[in-house]
Amino acid sequence: MSTGQGQKEPESNRVRVDIYGQDYALKGQASVEYLRRVARLVDEQMKEIGEQNPRLDYSRIAVLAAVNIADRYLRLCDEYEDLLRSLERESESRIREES
Amino acid sequence: MSTGQGQKEPESNRVRVDIYGQDYALKGQASVEYLRRVARLVDEQMKEIGEQNPRLDYSRIAVLAAVNIADRYLRLCDEYEDLLRSLERESESRIREES
Repeated sequence: MSTGQGQKEPESNRVRVDIYGQDYALKGQASVEYLRRVARLVDEQMKEIGEQNPRLDYSRIAVLAAVNIADRYLRLCDEYEDLLRSLERESESRIREES
Repeated sequence: MSTGQGQKEPESNRVRVDIYGQDYALKGQASVEYLRRVARLVDEQMKEIGEQNPRLDYSRIAVLAAVNIADRYLRLCDEYEDLLRSLERESESRIREES
């Protein structure tokens, strides 16, 4: 997924989206529907932060939205790795049982 | 994790971080180390976008960083769900084999 100039990989889909009142052009190999889903997540997160902190300016709301989404991403990364590790252990113990 | 005023849950850790040259106060029940890790991901993403698009202003860089992190998050969500679904199918087929 790319957000402006400078990408190298071939990208086919483009979509204009509104994120918290500003216009952005997103492009990527993913479907237009997926690109809109990504934009919607950022927009919703910014709205939530903006409502909780009405005096924050646009750029701080955007950074804090990025922080919250990064938090969700890193938690899921950790959870995913834990699951893979436990599957590995389970598969090792099954191999030992069978041998 | 919280990013300012208005949170309800008990939160113990606070840390001041620099994200792309601006100061932010993050707080959360997670460790200070984890809070810094979250901030670092946003900072790195903003630096990458800022380098690729030197004429973009701070707030657009922040939104596009949020978009890129949201993209990574949603891809991982889909991957995680696919894995859970395939584990479920595997476990069902094992139950059928054993019965």
